[in-house]
Order: sequence, then structure tokens, then C-alpha cells
Amino acid sequence: MPELRKDPILGRWIIISKERSQRPTDFVIEEFKSTGGFCPLCPGNEKTTPSEVMVLGREPGLPPNSAGWQLRVVPNKFPALVIEGELLKEGEGLYDRMNGIGAHEVVVESPGHEDRFVYLPPEQMILVFKAFKNRILDLSRDPRFLYVMVFKNYGRAAGASLEHPHSQLVALPILPRMVTSELEGTLSYYKYKDRCIYCDIIRQELQQDIRLVCQNDRFVCLTPFAPRSPFEMWILPKQHSSSYTDQSEESLERLVNIFSESMRRLDACIPNVPYNFVLHTQPLRSAPLEHYHWHFEIVPKLTSIAGFEWGSGFYINPMPPEDTCKYLREAL
Amino acid sequence: MPELRKDPILGRWIIISKERSQRPTDFVIEEFKSTGGFCPLCPGNEKTTPSEVMVLGREPGLPPNSAGWQLRVVPNKFPALVIEGELLKEGEGLYDRMNGIGAHEVVVESPGHEDRFVYLPPEQMILVFKAFKNRILDLSRDPRFLYVMVFKNYGRAAGASLEHPHSQLVALPILPRMVTSELEGTLSYYKYKDRCIYCDIIRQELQQDIRLVCQNDRFVCLTPFAPRSPFEMWILPKQHSSSYTDQSEESLERLVNIFSESMRRLDACIPNVPYNFVLHTQPLRSAPLEHYHWHFEIVPKLTSIAGFEWGSGFYINPMPPEDTCKYLREAL
Repeated sequence: MPELRKDPILGRWIIISKERSQRPTDFVIEEFKSTGGFCPLCPGNEKTTPSEVMVLGREPGLPPNSAGWQLRVVPNKFPALVIEGELLKEGEGLYDRMNGIGAHEVVVESPGHEDRFVYLPPEQMILVFKAFKNRILDLSRDPRFLYVMVFKNYGRAAGASLEHPHSQLVALPILPRMVTSELEGTLSYYKYKDRCIYCDIIRQELQQDIRLVCQNDRFVCLTPFAPRSPFEMWILPKQHSSSYTDQSEESLERLVNIFSESMRRLDACIPNVPYNFVLHTQPLRSAPLEHYHWHFEIVPKLTSIAGFEWGSGFYINPMPPEDTCKYLREAL
Repeated sequence: MPELRKDPILGRWIIISKERSQRPTDFVIEEFKSTGGFCPLCPGNEKTTPSEVMVLGREPGLPPNSAGWQLRVVPNKFPALVIEGELLKEGEGLYDRMNGIGAHEVVVESPGHEDRFVYLPPEQMILVFKAFKNRILDLSRDPRFLYVMVFKNYGRAAGASLEHPHSQLVALPILPRMVTSELEGTLSYYKYKDRCIYCDIIRQELQQDIRLVCQNDRFVCLTPFAPRSPFEMWILPKQHSSSYTDQSEESLERLVNIFSESMRRLDACIPNVPYNFVLHTQPLRSAPLEHYHWHFEIVPKLTSIAGFEWGSGFYINPMPPEDTCKYLREAL
């Protein structure tokens, strides 16, 4: 059973996920797990993954875990957290821990092994965003979970261990630190100004027009003022909303429109760049929040996290977001 | 001139250091800068670095920036922050920025290009720790600086761009987030318990004896309860002290003793593992703090920071610190 542990000084949690390695020599640094040409996520190999928890577009009449689907969500075969068990919290002297209850799922974004997320046709890409919504809603019914973190690792340098296009989600029994920091930061601004800081940012960015990558009627994509990495982009709904899952079908379509355009622009600037994206939305079962605003953060893997970043929590970025924005705008 | 920018939601600062790249195609992902066999840090090449700010063990009678030294500290040729100028702070709508005033120096740990920090003889290694002390004390006389971050990147995967053994330091006009988080965390514990949390941790670790890698009369090395990475180690003085620079010559000798032993143990477990270490000490010109305790954090580069870590601020660690401690103990 994995375990969650809290750093007593910083309040930062970590997951000890023992199953993943056993001896010091097991650490293979940042290399693809070799699957010897075999892909467990490809159609026809459904039986090699844990049983699917969701499927979209399977041809009628076909049984679960058979081929003929457009998108599948399956539990991760090497989960960071496990779904079975009761949440137990305990101390060890001045330390705190709990057992590693959670869910870790893989969203298989397309049947095509060679497909890339960025170039999925809109009718396929929307299935990915629908899957995020449906899985968050489903997992929110489990009272042990406080948050679902949705993310994608693309490319080896960005932590992907499988080539087949996929994203992931982890349901957590605690609120992650990055989310509480955003909630606290936005609340403190709200208390002072009575406005959502993300709404204010969107207003300023639309007016300044120097970090605005693209927009449509519902969404903006911008390079944030203080990005951790060159070509970092944020995608936010123009209208205030704290919950990703409150989106209508039409809004999801417009999200696909801007996501697709933004990612194509990025890919045109730096072909096949490794990247991560994450979804930040309100905690599960929360009432709508006036001070919080859901969004995606897309972080290309172009710089390395080294001693200075570890020690300071500071990032060094070699290119201002106004410059990356210019490149992104001119890219298509 | 580099620039410091604050994320308005998280209060996280970043450094925009333009000089380091200009076009999207300049991003070469995690590759060593090729020096074509030429090493600017080797003896004889002193004129190819900026003029030294400190030297130890140069033979008497020789001029500055000549060969015949045991350790040199030089400004970084590609600094993240620059030393000349006045500190200017300004707003841009709801955003905050200041110009990138600071110092960025390289500690050349030994004349030998092939030497490795871990295997430096004690009389050489102590020069490195003396250099850290002297440079912090010297830079603390500049009222523009609030903190000096000392760190080392070893190995390409850990962000090193030169092979010659070296560490670095950055003087900053703000307190980095990681330091303020530690100061806040320790202060809140102190308010509640009237004790330093690091002192309590050392007491508990000495008593439990399951995460204690090694100790001498003045220092402990332990694998922390909630490590970000397998084989993470912390080195702390047994006696309470908030400031690294308050150490006596004798204490520095004992620090070399434990540092050297700990790193040799690590190297025996995973030969030539890439790693970062950072020094956390109190802010410059601070009075001694009852609640804070200086220490080194050594973080091997064995896992990758991917979408989940970016999005959550959470780390997934495949090996409990009790297990890594056992390997480290049995290593020599």
C-alpha cells in the first residue's frame, strides 16, 4: 500500500509508492520503459490493461474491454495511489502520514498509436475533455477524495513513459499544495478587491494585448506574466467559473477550439516539444467559488530544474512571455 | 538587464534572464554546452572567466587571475542576475516586477578537472565550505541583497553545464519562497511548542534510529521523513544554530567529515548519481533565530518532475527513506 507523508516544516505532502522500484539499481534515469514494440494501450490489447472504467465511442453490441472504441479510461497498472481500503491517518512522533488511498487512471486519447494530441481532429479531442469531466464527476462521489488532478506528460523529457497518446488523472485524499496556494492567493485578493484575480488578469491581458496568444468567444490563451518556463501558456474561460465540470457541451467545443489552436502554435514554434499540462479546478464537492477560476496550465519542458530551483522555489526563465507570445502569434 | 517578476496568485518569483537565449530554436534541451575540449575553469585559463572575487591557496607572489591556486570564486559568465545597478521596483497593472540585481558566482572547487567533489581530500573540501562562508559574509555587506542561495549541480541530468568540479551561489534581492516557507513553518511550530522543529527532528531521529545515515560529534545526516526523491539526505548541526556563517573552523572540519562520508555512501549505492545540494540558512543580517536551523539538503536526480508534480506541488517517491537509509548505512 502506498503511503502519504507530510513534511513537518513545509506542510508539503509526498507519496511513497514502493511498488515502483525495490533496489537502488532499479533507478533507470529518465528512460522509456521498453515495451519491446508492444503497446498496452493499442486496440486489440485491451486485456493487458486493468479493466476500463469508462469508454467512449465503442461500437454497439461489443463487450467491455474489446477493440472498436474511440477513447478509453483505464486504471494505471502501476498506480501511485490505490483505490481499495479505508483512509487511515496516523502520527509517528512529530510526523504525520496516511495510507495511500486514491485513484490513478490513464485516459487513452485515441486508438491511433501514432496520433498526437495536438493534431487530433476536434471530434476526437472533445472526447478527451469530456472524459476529464466525466471522471472528475464520477470520482467526486467518493467521499474519501478531495481533489482530482488531471494532467498530461508528452515526450520523454516531460516524464511520459508510453508513446501512445494518453493523459492521466489522480484522485487525492488531500488538497495538493499548489491548489491550496492558488485558493489562498485568490481569496486574499478577493478579500481586498472583491473581484476574482483571474478575471482581472484576463481583463488586463485583453487590454494590454502583449501576452495574448489567441482567443475565441469563450476562452483566452495567454503567456502568463511570470512563467516558470519559456512558452508556458494558460487557457482560461472568459466568463468567471470555478469549476471545470460546470461546462456545457458547447463550452467544451470552444475549449477544443482554443486548445487545439494554442498547441498547434506551440508545435509550430518548437516542433514536437515535450510538455506537461495540468487542469486546475475547484476542490471536489465545493460550492461555486467567487474568488477562484478554473484553467489549464501548459508548461513546455525546455529548462531544467536544478539546485537553484530546488533550493529557492524560484525559476529562471530565459525568455520573457511577451517575446514567446510574439512567436506564438506569428507561428500559424 | 534581467528582471524579477512575481506571479500575482502564488507570490512566486521568477527571473527572466534574457541574455541566455534569443530564439525558440536556441533551446537545446538539457545538453551540455560544448566547450570543444576547452575548460574555462582549468588552471591556465583564468583570463577566460570574469575576474576572480576570491581565491584560496594561491602561491605567494603570484598575481590575481594566474594559475597556482587551490580554489577560486569567479562571477558567472552568464549570470542569472547582475551586480551593477540600483534596485528598481515597479508595477504593471496588477503585476509586480523589479530589475534583476543580484550576484551569481561560481566556486571552482579544485584545480583538477577530473576531481569529483565527493572524493576531494578533507583539506581541499574544507576550502569549498570556507568559500561558501566567506562569500555569504562578503555579499551580506551589500544592503540590496536579502539572501544568498548556495547550491551545487552535479551531472548533466541535475543541470550542470560544465564538467569541472564547481558549485554556485546567487545573491538575491528578495527572500526566496522556499526559505520564507521554511521560516514560516518553523515559526509556527515554535509559537506552539517553544522549540525549534529541526532540533526536535534530530532528537526523534537519533532516538528512532531508522533514518539516521551517520553522525559525528557535531552533525547528523538523515534521510528525511517525507523526501522528494529517493536517497534525499539532510545534514544538520546537532547544536541549534540558525546561521551557517557562525560556524567555527573546527565545526567546518566536522562538517567536511560528515559531508564527505554521506556523499561517499551515496556514491557507493548509486555510482556517479547526478545530484543537487542546497544550503538553507537564515536571511542575511538577521539576528540569530530561535526557530530556524541551518542545514544542507542533498537531492539525487532519480525521478522526473512531470505533470503531476507541476500541477500539485506533490512528489511521488518510489522508495521510503527507511529503505534508502538502510542502503546508505550498509554502503561503506
